[in-house]
Amino acid sequence: MELKLRVLKLGKLLFGKSLKTEDLKNEKFNIFWGLPILSSDAISSVAYAGEEILWVLVPILGLMSYKYMFYAAICIVFLMFLLFFSYRQTIDSYPNGGGSYIVAKDNLGVIPGLTAGAALSIDYILTVAVSTSAGTAAITSAVPSLLKYKVLITASLIILMTLGNLRGIRESSRIFGIPTYLFIISVGIMIVTGIVKIYVLGYNPHPIYKIPEATGDIGIFLFLKAFASGCTALTGIEAVSNGIPNFREPSQKNAKIVLGLLATVVLLIFGGLSYVSTLYHAVPNSSETVISQIASQIFGQNIMYFIIQITTAIILIMAANTAFAGYPLLLALISKDGFAPRQFTKRGKRLGFSNGILLLSAAACLLVLIFKSETHLLLPLYAVGVFISFTLSQCGMFIKWIREKGPSWKRKAFINGLGAIVTIITVIIIGATKFFHGAWIVGIIIPSLVIIMLRIKKHYISVATQLKLKINIKPKEIDFANQKRYAIVPIDTLNKSFLKALNYARTISDNIIVFHVSVDDEATEKLLKKWNAYNVGIPIVIKKSPYRNLVGPLVSFIKSEEYAADHKDIVTVVIPQFVVEKWWCNILHNHTALFVKGMLLKERNIAIVTIPYIIEEE
Amino acid sequence: MELKLRVLKLGKLLFGKSLKTEDLKNEKFNIFWGLPILSSDAISSVAYAGEEILWVLVPILGLMSYKYMFYAAICIVFLMFLLFFSYRQTIDSYPNGGGSYIVAKDNLGVIPGLTAGAALSIDYILTVAVSTSAGTAAITSAVPSLLKYKVLITASLIILMTLGNLRGIRESSRIFGIPTYLFIISVGIMIVTGIVKIYVLGYNPHPIYKIPEATGDIGIFLFLKAFASGCTALTGIEAVSNGIPNFREPSQKNAKIVLGLLATVVLLIFGGLSYVSTLYHAVPNSSETVISQIASQIFGQNIMYFIIQITTAIILIMAANTAFAGYPLLLALISKDGFAPRQFTKRGKRLGFSNGILLLSAAACLLVLIFKSETHLLLPLYAVGVFISFTLSQCGMFIKWIREKGPSWKRKAFINGLGAIVTIITVIIIGATKFFHGAWIVGIIIPSLVIIMLRIKKHYISVATQLKLKINIKPKEIDFANQKRYAIVPIDTLNKSFLKALNYARTISDNIIVFHVSVDDEATEKLLKKWNAYNVGIPIVIKKSPYRNLVGPLVSFIKSEEYAADHKDIVTVVIPQFVVEKWWCNILHNHTALFVKGMLLKERNIAIVTIPYIIEEE
Repeated sequence: MELKLRVLKLGKLLFGKSLKTEDLKNEKFNIFWGLPILSSDAISSVAYAGEEILWVLVPILGLMSYKYMFYAAICIVFLMFLLFFSYRQTIDSYPNGGGSYIVAKDNLGVIPGLTAGAALSIDYILTVAVSTSAGTAAITSAVPSLLKYKVLITASLIILMTLGNLRGIRESSRIFGIPTYLFIISVGIMIVTGIVKIYVLGYNPHPIYKIPEATGDIGIFLFLKAFASGCTALTGIEAVSNGIPNFREPSQKNAKIVLGLLATVVLLIFGGLSYVSTLYHAVPNSSETVISQIASQIFGQNIMYFIIQITTAIILIMAANTAFAGYPLLLALISKDGFAPRQFTKRGKRLGFSNGILLLSAAACLLVLIFKSETHLLLPLYAVGVFISFTLSQCGMFIKWIREKGPSWKRKAFINGLGAIVTIITVIIIGATKFFHGAWIVGIIIPSLVIIMLRIKKHYISVATQLKLKINIKPKEIDFANQKRYAIVPIDTLNKSFLKALNYARTISDNIIVFHVSVDDEATEKLLKKWNAYNVGIPIVIKKSPYRNLVGPLVSFIKSEEYAADHKDIVTVVIPQFVVEKWWCNILHNHTALFVKGMLLKERNIAIVTIPYIIEEE
Repeated sequence: MELKLRVLKLGKLLFGKSLKTEDLKNEKFNIFWGLPILSSDAISSVAYAGEEILWVLVPILGLMSYKYMFYAAICIVFLMFLLFFSYRQTIDSYPNGGGSYIVAKDNLGVIPGLTAGAALSIDYILTVAVSTSAGTAAITSAVPSLLKYKVLITASLIILMTLGNLRGIRESSRIFGIPTYLFIISVGIMIVTGIVKIYVLGYNPHPIYKIPEATGDIGIFLFLKAFASGCTALTGIEAVSNGIPNFREPSQKNAKIVLGLLATVVLLIFGGLSYVSTLYHAVPNSSETVISQIASQIFGQNIMYFIIQITTAIILIMAANTAFAGYPLLLALISKDGFAPRQFTKRGKRLGFSNGILLLSAAACLLVLIFKSETHLLLPLYAVGVFISFTLSQCGMFIKWIREKGPSWKRKAFINGLGAIVTIITVIIIGATKFFHGAWIVGIIIPSLVIIMLRIKKHYISVATQLKLKINIKPKEIDFANQKRYAIVPIDTLNKSFLKALNYARTISDNIIVFHVSVDDEATEKLLKKWNAYNVGIPIVIKKSPYRNLVGPLVSFIKSEEYAADHKDIVTVVIPQFVVEKWWCNILHNHTALFVKGMLLKERNIAIVTIPYIIEEE
């Protein structure tokens, strides 16, 4: 009791008061808050995308890299707009949230749908793991003394975010929205200043790190590899179309506006950053990030530099929140379709899908622990999952247009078809270039998840069919006159709670058997003496149990001849159970009643009656 | 199901097949196996007792130490014989195991009894922690590369012992008995060889380590301190009198014989070792144990040296087993008296007091983790607990003789009285000299344990009094003719398992209400449509639950006017619960039934009927 109360109070403190189901609509977001919460992932990934490209190019092309980096960036921006247009189409056709899961399921069938679902699940979990890890890395590289608490920090960040999201959608968007705007603004300022400094003030930049000599020339494979690495910039772009139901009415319109804003922001920041880093010749290395190099060249070590670093760190952490907004929703969809445990469809006290949130944070924490919060170990798994889901949704939309042949279907089909081709190529490139870096793991997990989900569905179907009731089956008529009911009352000691049970048994049945399982002869002796002294003319049956098993004898007795012979109906077992008021008192009792009930439940023809007997504490 | 089966198989593999309660007598030990299992603690403590004395003396007395060490050893042996005689008397008067707990409780009252119980509990837990840690230290100092796995090794040792003991008493005594004999024999040989080498072969020993210069002279306090430190040699000597019920008939006689043998062995080995170490001038230091020094001087680095080292390590580990034999028994006694949770009185499949064994190993593991398996940190806590329990049992016996004035009571009283005085002095000395080294912790834990135990007793008493049934209270007569019974059947969806519940309800009551808690209007709509189509003329009550709470509305309805008005009797709530066969399927269901039952249990006037509906897996 006490504990329960305390827990409730704590819960209220952490999560705020419970919310009515009607409050749901008030929990949704408008454009201003929808942009940051649904796009922080996509926007933050810009922070490392450019660097990823340079990592591929610089060692080989040296100074030439920057030209091709910019080309790669342009291709990625092109791909992004492809995705932008195709996801606009998705939003139009899927007002209730068109994640790759839905799109693939509707147009390509269950298996592709589940594949997309599995891919997305991995994607979301990795978003949390990767982003928080990267954020922590940013912090620890600023304060190296914290380095040894890396995993701990990341884990606590995840837990903090979990609490925030359990509080409910809108509030968390407030909490997590602001940093995104700060990041956009400060990076924007940096880019503009950077360009002005060179073209207006005629500043001549000298790179902090020496640019290595070119060791080779550009080849199509190298370029594609660079492109593939840069594609991490696009992770999280699908979040908006998944999240439509989270928007205020008119949700589709709002979603499309947000998507547009998102695309513009990514274009400006990603394009801008790439361009500026070609101007300032940032060299990727393990000790200082590209952004940090550019920032220090543009601003020097002044306040602006630190603002850039801090906001970068924060938005990376907050990017994880996109997953907290998106994944529980996806899980709810999947489990509504019966492919995941039903619990994920239930809304918590604060109307968030609590179970989904908890699963996500648990899985992410696990990954962080396993991979010791090392971003670079997690990234390869990440990209593959994302682009697999992209591909499936693109294909889905393509098929949709072909099949429906609606207005201007050719144009739409072209857009999605093109998207499908490009994304699938990207998948192949990433898969090929990163296979041994962990991409293979995804190749194992996705199929297994699909199989599990199918198995779950099978179970739910079999349950439903077995429970299905034909409307014409009526409850059987009962002839109360010559109907005979059987009740068994197990006895351990003859006390008030037993008496209460016996009393009840007598109200429902006129042939009762009191049943005692004897594990200790002395005790049984005592009981029998008492029972005989008590004489109420109700027969008592005693069975010995040498192995101290309490339920076996009872069950076998019920099934045995001596009893089953003349019983046709369900047997009622009336079990007294005393209930203590203080929670800690529970550890002082054996809970035999609970145990016995658990075992009896497995018997088809036994009805278990529990008679509570409340014990007060003086 | 599957899982359960697998678990059962695993259990059999680890613990062997279940044993009948009758098998109990076969599980007891004879003298030959009783000696090692009950005395390994006492005997093994000899391995560090002498060293403890030298640690106190050598830094101050230098070469003089050995003389006074031998004196101290003599005093300790004298104290031991005092304990030997007094425990013989205890065995005579307490055939069913006379631990300090019983003796103190019978003769000094409950509080002293519980104090002894608490002290013993600490003692036992520390025996496990200290001995295994010491054993591990011996191993790791032999194989330094293992040093970093210290805690891990100690923990695994404890777990191994736990498994061994869960298998049952006799077998474990076999497993753990042999090393004790090996230790006795090998150390015996060492002592004899050592003496012969000097007096017969005229060998002139030269100490391995330089004996420090004397910095002071012997004082009474210094000597007492040395004596106190050496007293660790006597830990575990009470094990025999606690363990009488574990002996074969005639258990008292056997126990006394074992106690005698134990005393003799300790006398010989402790006396012998002390004497030999005065001959060979072993100097205590952190890198090499005294025994190891002596052994290497006597045998050189040959096979015998390693045998000594190995058997020492093993017996130290095995000493922990004494606690596994003693503590569960003590806990069973305490909880039979109602001062500890009842579960500790239950025997496991293999007839050991499983819960006690598990508690012991858990607590010990915790200590090992906290104290990083450092023996020297644990020892101060250890000695205090042991001697507090000694003192209490001595006082108890003393009072007993005074009160009873039986045959030759003066002699008996004298023996125990002397014991009491000496042990209490020892307690004071240890407490004073080791207070800041951890002895204070014991001063906090013992009282708290006592308070907890009293609180538990209070609870059990209040439960018993509330359940107590006066033999003249008969079950109330039921007039089946004009008796009205009420049944409520909660409905979520109209399906077969609901129908089964409804059918049952109709057999026990003729005014049934079907009750639906609405958390989702759509679902409720659907249900109502179905229900009306179904029309069985049973009223359905629908209550909205905006906060998605399923039980509240039902309970408040039962209590509310509209219903409670015309009900006098217990209300029966019939809950359909479907049971899945595969264990993993359980995670796919909400278990609302279980939850609802849990909440309803708290209501005095509700009988909960569970109607199982088994779902087969195709």
